[in-house]
Amino acid sequence: MHTIKELQTIFTEHLAKQDFFSNPKELYEPIVYSMNMGGKRLRPVCLLAACELFGGDYRKALDPAVGIEMFHNFTLVHDDIMDNAHLRRGQETVYKKWNPNIGILSGDTMFAIAFDYVMRIDDDLMRKTMSLFDKTAIEVCEGQQFDLNYETIPTVTIPDYFNMIRLKTGVLVAASLKMGAIIARAEEAQADAIYDFGLYTGLAFQLVDDLLDIFSNDQKFGKERGGDIVCNKKTYLYLKGYELAGAAEKEALDRLFSDKTISPEEKVNAVATIWEKLGVPDAARAEIRHFHQKAIDSLNSLNVPKERTAELRQLADMLLERTY
Amino acid sequence: MHTIKELQTIFTEHLAKQDFFSNPKELYEPIVYSMNMGGKRLRPVCLLAACELFGGDYRKALDPAVGIEMFHNFTLVHDDIMDNAHLRRGQETVYKKWNPNIGILSGDTMFAIAFDYVMRIDDDLMRKTMSLFDKTAIEVCEGQQFDLNYETIPTVTIPDYFNMIRLKTGVLVAASLKMGAIIARAEEAQADAIYDFGLYTGLAFQLVDDLLDIFSNDQKFGKERGGDIVCNKKTYLYLKGYELAGAAEKEALDRLFSDKTISPEEKVNAVATIWEKLGVPDAARAEIRHFHQKAIDSLNSLNVPKERTAELRQLADMLLERTY
Repeated sequence: MHTIKELQTIFTEHLAKQDFFSNPKELYEPIVYSMNMGGKRLRPVCLLAACELFGGDYRKALDPAVGIEMFHNFTLVHDDIMDNAHLRRGQETVYKKWNPNIGILSGDTMFAIAFDYVMRIDDDLMRKTMSLFDKTAIEVCEGQQFDLNYETIPTVTIPDYFNMIRLKTGVLVAASLKMGAIIARAEEAQADAIYDFGLYTGLAFQLVDDLLDIFSNDQKFGKERGGDIVCNKKTYLYLKGYELAGAAEKEALDRLFSDKTISPEEKVNAVATIWEKLGVPDAARAEIRHFHQKAIDSLNSLNVPKERTAELRQLADMLLERTY
Repeated sequence: MHTIKELQTIFTEHLAKQDFFSNPKELYEPIVYSMNMGGKRLRPVCLLAACELFGGDYRKALDPAVGIEMFHNFTLVHDDIMDNAHLRRGQETVYKKWNPNIGILSGDTMFAIAFDYVMRIDDDLMRKTMSLFDKTAIEVCEGQQFDLNYETIPTVTIPDYFNMIRLKTGVLVAASLKMGAIIARAEEAQADAIYDFGLYTGLAFQLVDDLLDIFSNDQKFGKERGGDIVCNKKTYLYLKGYELAGAAEKEALDRLFSDKTISPEEKVNAVATIWEKLGVPDAARAEIRHFHQKAIDSLNSLNVPKERTAELRQLADMLLERTY
C-alpha cells in the first residue's frame, strides 16, 4: 500500500505520460491546458487509494483515475462558462482564454475522453463501472442545475443545500472511491461503504470551503476574503444565518445583502459580525464534525484491518483540519 | 424484417414510452422538449434496420437507438448555441427558449443519458459498442470544431471539407448502422461494410443538403433559399466555385461575398448564376453519385441475400433523390 502522498506522485506521473493532444488543435489545446492546470487530484487519488485499500493493483486503476480527473475538469470548464468565472487556480479559465464556443466543445470532448479512460478496465467490470460513472455524471449535472437555480430562488432550505452539494461535490468523490473498490473486486457492501465515506467527506469538504471563505486566518490562494458574501451566495452560512436570526438580525442581513451602495469590505465585515453573534460558524463546525464522523463510521464499518484505512482517514482529516 | 417506414413507427412509439423527465425541471424540461421536436429519426432507424439486416432482434436495439437519437439531439442543442441558431425544425432552439446555460447543462445531461441507453445491451457487447460510440462522439466534436474553424480560415480545400462533413455528419450515421450490426452479432467485416455504407450515405446526404440550399425547386421547410450563400458558408459549392473559377469569376465571387451593401436576394441570385455557369451544381451531383455508388458497393459487398438490403438501399435513394 502506498501513502496518499505517494499515490499523488504516482498519479501525476501517469497523467504526465498521457498525450491528449490531437487534431484540430483548437479543440485539443484547451484540453491539455485544462488538464495541466494542476489541483489536488483528490478524486483520482481517492480512486487509487480505495483500490489499494481492498487489495487491488493500483496500476489497473490508473487509467480510470485519469478518466475521473478528465470528467472533473470537464465540469469545471463548463461551470466556468455558466458562472462567468475568469480565473481558476490563479489562471485564466478555458472559455476566457479562448471563447465560450471552445469551452463548450472542448468540454464535450473531455467528457467523451473521460469515458474512454474509465472504460480501460477488465471486461467483466464494464457494466458496473460504466453504470456508476454515468449515473454520477447525471447527478453532477443535476447538482450544477440546483446550484444555478438557487442563485435566483428566494427560499432555499438547508436540506435543499445539502442535497445540492451532495450532487455537485459529494457523489463524484464517492464514485471515485467506489470505482477503486470495484476495480479491486471488493464486495458490493464494502464498495457501498467506501462510497458513503466519500459522500460524507465531500459534504464536509464543501462546508469547510464555505467556512474558509470568511472565517479563516490564512486566506486560500487566489480567493478574496468573503467572496461568497459579496455575491450573496446561498452557502450554508447564509442559510443558517437566516435560520438563526431574530427579527432585528434578519432585517440587518436583508439590508446588507440588498444594499448596493455599501463597500464590499464593509458588507463582508458586517455580515460576518452578525453571523458570529448568531453562532453560525459554530453551527457549521458542528455539521462538519457530524459529516466527518459519519465518514469515519463508514470507514470503520469496512471489513478490512483497521490499519489499512489509516491513509483514507488521514486524507479526510487533512481535507477538513483547516477549520478546527 | 420491417420496412423503413415500419421501423420509423416502431422507434417513434418506443421513444414516446420513455420518460426523460426528472428533477430539477429546469434541467429536464429542455431535454423532453428537444427529444419531442421530431425530425427524421434517421440514425435510430438506421440502427434498427442494420440490426434486422443481419438477422438480429430489433427489440434488443431499441434502447441503444434511443441513445443514438439522444446523442444526436445533444449535439444539436450545443451546436445551436455555438451557431447562434434561433430556430430548429421550425421551433425555438433550446438555448433561445431558455438560455445558454440551460443549453449547455441540458446538453451535457443528454450526453450522459445517451450513454445510459446505449449501454442497455448484452454484457459481452459492452466493450465493442461503447468503444464505437465513444470514438464516434469524439469525432463528431472534432467535426464541429473543424466546421467552426472553417468559418474564419480563408483557404479550405475540398478534401478538408469532405473530412469535416465525414466527422460532423458521416460517422454518426455510420456508427448507428454498425451498432445495429454489433447487436445482431454480425461478423466484424460485415459490421465494417455497413459502417462504410453509412459513411458514404452521410457524405452524399450532406452534399445534397448543400445543393438544396440553392439549386432546388421546392425549398425545404423553414429554410430561406440561399441561406448558406448569404452567410458566406464554405460549403462544397462555395469551394468548388472558387476551384473552377477563372480570374474574372473569382473576382466577381470575391466581390459578391464581401459586398455588404448588396441585398441578400441579389447576392444569392448573382452567386448562383456564376456557379451554374461554372458547372458547380453538376460537379456536386457527380460527387453525390460517386458517394452514393460507394455506399451501394459497400451494401453489395455484404454477405447477406441481396433482397435483405433492399430497405437500406431504398433509404439511401430516398435521402438523395431530391436532387436528381
